[in-house]
Amino acid sequence: MKPLKVALLGCGVVGSEVARRITGHGDDLAARIGAPLELSAVVVRDTAKDRPGVPTDVLTTDHEAAIAGADIVVELMGGMEPARSSILAALGQGASVVTANKALLAAHYGELMHAADAAGVRLEHEAAVAGAIPIIRPLGDSLAGDRITRVMGIVNGTTNYILDQMDREGWDFDRSLRTAQELGYAEADPTADVGGHDAAAKAAILSSLAFHTPVTIDDVHVEGITAVTSDMIATARAQGFTIKLLAICEKLEDSPEGAGVSARVYPALIPRDHVLAGVGGAFNAVFVEAEAAGELMFYGQGAGGAPTASAVLGDIVSVARRRVLGGRGQYERNVASALPVLPVSAITTRYQITLDVFDRPGVLSKVTEVFTEEGISIELVQQTVIPAEAPATESSPEPRAKLVVATHSGTDAALRRTADRLAELDVVGALVSVLRIEGH
Amino acid sequence: MKPLKVALLGCGVVGSEVARRITGHGDDLAARIGAPLELSAVVVRDTAKDRPGVPTDVLTTDHEAAIAGADIVVELMGGMEPARSSILAALGQGASVVTANKALLAAHYGELMHAADAAGVRLEHEAAVAGAIPIIRPLGDSLAGDRITRVMGIVNGTTNYILDQMDREGWDFDRSLRTAQELGYAEADPTADVGGHDAAAKAAILSSLAFHTPVTIDDVHVEGITAVTSDMIATARAQGFTIKLLAICEKLEDSPEGAGVSARVYPALIPRDHVLAGVGGAFNAVFVEAEAAGELMFYGQGAGGAPTASAVLGDIVSVARRRVLGGRGQYERNVASALPVLPVSAITTRYQITLDVFDRPGVLSKVTEVFTEEGISIELVQQTVIPAEAPATESSPEPRAKLVVATHSGTDAALRRTADRLAELDVVGALVSVLRIEGH
Repeated sequence: MKPLKVALLGCGVVGSEVARRITGHGDDLAARIGAPLELSAVVVRDTAKDRPGVPTDVLTTDHEAAIAGADIVVELMGGMEPARSSILAALGQGASVVTANKALLAAHYGELMHAADAAGVRLEHEAAVAGAIPIIRPLGDSLAGDRITRVMGIVNGTTNYILDQMDREGWDFDRSLRTAQELGYAEADPTADVGGHDAAAKAAILSSLAFHTPVTIDDVHVEGITAVTSDMIATARAQGFTIKLLAICEKLEDSPEGAGVSARVYPALIPRDHVLAGVGGAFNAVFVEAEAAGELMFYGQGAGGAPTASAVLGDIVSVARRRVLGGRGQYERNVASALPVLPVSAITTRYQITLDVFDRPGVLSKVTEVFTEEGISIELVQQTVIPAEAPATESSPEPRAKLVVATHSGTDAALRRTADRLAELDVVGALVSVLRIEGH
Repeated sequence: MKPLKVALLGCGVVGSEVARRITGHGDDLAARIGAPLELSAVVVRDTAKDRPGVPTDVLTTDHEAAIAGADIVVELMGGMEPARSSILAALGQGASVVTANKALLAAHYGELMHAADAAGVRLEHEAAVAGAIPIIRPLGDSLAGDRITRVMGIVNGTTNYILDQMDREGWDFDRSLRTAQELGYAEADPTADVGGHDAAAKAAILSSLAFHTPVTIDDVHVEGITAVTSDMIATARAQGFTIKLLAICEKLEDSPEGAGVSARVYPALIPRDHVLAGVGGAFNAVFVEAEAAGELMFYGQGAGGAPTASAVLGDIVSVARRRVLGGRGQYERNVASALPVLPVSAITTRYQITLDVFDRPGVLSKVTEVFTEEGISIELVQQTVIPAEAPATESSPEPRAKLVVATHSGTDAALRRTADRLAELDVVGALVSVLRIEGH
């Protein structure tokens, strides 16, 4: 068989691992595909840089020439441009495309998929969500005959490592972040991770795929983990919960805002016996609920050169096989449903609200009255007198207590209003934390 | 588009769920496939039986006629014949086939796949292993560019429920089995489950797929869970382990018997912090280790009408899309590697051996000497004097002790020999249990 030409755009940690495997495992790959792969071009900024194991004769800085001759274009540059233009050019020339670019897909999923469909070729992107974990293909193919109702993922390893350390070791946020940085799990500027933005990009892609509706990162409600304190973790633990940063994609049939899709990222309480609670360290996991299949979970390494390269290679083999076997290459129309994307106020969830209150008679009734008025029923109230050694503020030296209220389900809007009203009560010293409870 | 004709062979719990979803979710499925599905025939033994939601006008007892007109044949009869002949006939006529028949695949995987390849159509079987969990497609497609080194699965819900109850509730085997039967998790005759045979069929399919080598159920080393006692579970727990029935498929590069594939099923100790340890109740999970991807796990419901139907429908949508889009339909050649299948003596593992010994001086040195002579190093020895209320046997009223020995890695053959020799020692009253340790 004639070799299939593969052009790599970008040759960082993932790209060089992909290049090494294409050249080093050629026989294996050829047997699985039915034709050999030929690494025809590797586009880099600096051809002189040392890249162990990557053949130097195919290094080039010329995007256009690299794409022009290729059967399969693998985009590993990241960012918006020139990644987007290069992918569109490759698709336009009838090349199949594999990308790991979550930021680009989270912004332009619909456009790119339409371009692939129009060209009759495939655009694969398994590595863009949860690294090595096969999640795109299970969602798009294996569950194609089912109806997915909810996807809940731990899709950012950095924040999972930080929260896991806070939970296991009792460290505070800063120490956990510093350790993550020392171990290479967190960037020097950790904003994209701890702010939830990386998870939001993945939530957009997962929603698009699960609900056949184009969702962009701008549609995703995002809260990061910077406000999570050791106290919140300890309270969660005492009540049988752990805190995880979740990317949640949900299909709502009858929300206050009508039917549609919700995509959101926030730190949430989940029961310690939920399978997601056991996902430790920098691992990722995606929990899926479908009408017929019930509960599924996919677990693995969410980042790193070799795991991401594994996902990229799986996609390369898949598109290569398809080229060998012939036939048109489209997916189902990924954006066929086009459901409205709903604001976070439309979701229904449970809350745990922690209040610092004055230890006076009647506090509890004032607090519970607010819940009643907002139509939110309370599942559990736990009051702890704050020990004397806790500093009483100048303005209010009277004894304080900590009140933890867990609610039954209510709309996010009603629960938000409840929290706002509680903060205004004269018996409440401070609204310590407001956390949603998921996985119940 | 012209409708695609689907013939169902068999209409039990799974079949009727599939029939209901094809007729009830027609629009959804048509949108995903690009053509409507038409349920053209449902082959049953008794057309008069009431099957709620299944259209009666397509019920028939005629296999041949049902297959003759179909684009897609869905085999849900189970067993060897007429399932095998029907599938071969359907493939021979160019129909795509979907099956959930693990027993048949475990016996005839190579033959059936070759027949599909020869006919240029696909034979899909996601539902045959671990019910709703997408595992076949991830192993065959997503990891196609990687090298799988090990697959370790909890693939039988009945035994997992029983072991989980023994571990959580402290029940003995009989009580756990009875409860499983009452809840419908176990058959009246539980032999296929508790004897490990059902898991062995799945191990054969997983091995064939993961290692591109035909493995049949006869190649699989099988030990069931009937010998697992409450004491073994309690000892495991005390040492930080839990006992799970594992189906293990492993690629061995340099075993005493050379390179090859090992497929085996046995109850094994796994550390309580291993992700597989958290798989409770009747759930299934498959843990995969690959060269580049690292550790992955797939979790979900392993049985039941709706979950299994979800997997079958995913396969139906997949083969239907392929028919709409055109092109030849083969997989990679699944049996391309044809590695030798090795006996269990070739594997390397750790053991936990529990002995009932006489509480005499010199016992420990006699016991450890056997390990030394067999070249097996000991990781941990724990000796517990058996309390006086334990009945001393007539023949040996002297005090006894329980000795738990955990070993470092050794070949299964050497560890077996060690266990046999220990049982013969005069200081050993009884060899209480021999368990392998996995997931370390």
